[in-house]
Amino acid sequence: MATPDFELVIGDKNWSSWSLRPWLLMRQAGIPFIETSIRLRQSDTKLQILAHSPTGFIPALKWRGAAIGDSLAICETMADLFPDKRLWPQDTLARALARSACAEMHSGFQGLRRDMPMAVLERHPGEGHTEEAIACARRIVEMWRGLRSRFGQQAADDHGFLFGRFGVADAMYAPVVTRFETYGVDLAAMGDDGTARAYMNAVLTLPSMREWIAGAEMEEREKTASS
Amino acid sequence: MATPDFELVIGDKNWSSWSLRPWLLMRQAGIPFIETSIRLRQSDTKLQILAHSPTGFIPALKWRGAAIGDSLAICETMADLFPDKRLWPQDTLARALARSACAEMHSGFQGLRRDMPMAVLERHPGEGHTEEAIACARRIVEMWRGLRSRFGQQAADDHGFLFGRFGVADAMYAPVVTRFETYGVDLAAMGDDGTARAYMNAVLTLPSMREWIAGAEMEEREKTASS
Repeated sequence: MATPDFELVIGDKNWSSWSLRPWLLMRQAGIPFIETSIRLRQSDTKLQILAHSPTGFIPALKWRGAAIGDSLAICETMADLFPDKRLWPQDTLARALARSACAEMHSGFQGLRRDMPMAVLERHPGEGHTEEAIACARRIVEMWRGLRSRFGQQAADDHGFLFGRFGVADAMYAPVVTRFETYGVDLAAMGDDGTARAYMNAVLTLPSMREWIAGAEMEEREKTASS
Repeated sequence: MATPDFELVIGDKNWSSWSLRPWLLMRQAGIPFIETSIRLRQSDTKLQILAHSPTGFIPALKWRGAAIGDSLAICETMADLFPDKRLWPQDTLARALARSACAEMHSGFQGLRRDMPMAVLERHPGEGHTEEAIACARRIVEMWRGLRSRFGQQAADDHGFLFGRFGVADAMYAPVVTRFETYGVDLAAMGDDGTARAYMNAVLTLPSMREWIAGAEMEEREKTASS
């Protein structure tokens, strides 16, 4: 298909975990888009967002006069519009389990999301280690191990991601990777045999992930300069 | 494709709003499955669920030795496996907006979910009308009106659903339809011009929706008889 005119509306790169997901997927897949940033936690943030997105949430993808809200809906839409990018696994069962993992992230892991909020540039080792957050971390490490061993390591073109190639499931869990770094989660104590550590390295060294983090640094410097 | 062996693990039909979604989609689409019911709110409920689903959540779809968790993941998987059933709209923009609406339901409307829990057989008019629940109801009525007028009523084969034909978006909102009935939400006061009322009637008279409600009645009678 011809390249459509996508505009992705996102929040601050240091904090906005939901924005990171579709941004990373689209950038890493080489899908061009205009990026519009809204500064969160300002008195006019809600008004700024509503100017783009009728739900009042970001991220939002503006396309053909409409606003497609929600990180997972945007990722599914990209996979749907660009089948050649193979953003979901090719095998139907693997694809179903990838969707299951994404949905679990999308509606769950509340303890982790509440107690270890994303802050990609910050380091707070030992903070936020509540019982609920740690239970989420254990479950996620177990899931990553299971998916890597069953699908990722078996893939003909394994690049170290959950299902081998980078895809929607990796984009959905990328903010968790940064949280484990920020809050110094001890992976071995979560049951990791090295798989989760290697997976996190694969995510953190993605060119687009580095670009996001560099973008967060630039934004924070600008905030400091203008305050 | 040949019919796969699906087993759908669900909770009590009176209460389990997340179970209703994939059940209704599969049943209405004529996709055969074995139904396994787990009684919720019992001392052994969690153990019973874990025997089927490693996440500890239902619904879960058991297929080819795996458990696919989550209502939305199961619905996406059905749309993916059975393209001929047209469970998503055919138009790409409509499909993107259908996914956006489903994602908003999947991760949001917390006030409605908390204050107006699903109880398909019960009537509690006026209960649960908290500010947050009513704000959700207003937003949903606005969304239904917008989707019906832009896509549903324009569809060549409009059967009264959000995008014309019954599909994933309708399955995702079916529990909301029952909640509005149970808690006596005044649709006109939510901004309805009759569109939401007509849409609710379309959902409530679906043969599979009637079957679910009849199943809930049977389950509750059995509970009374055995207690």
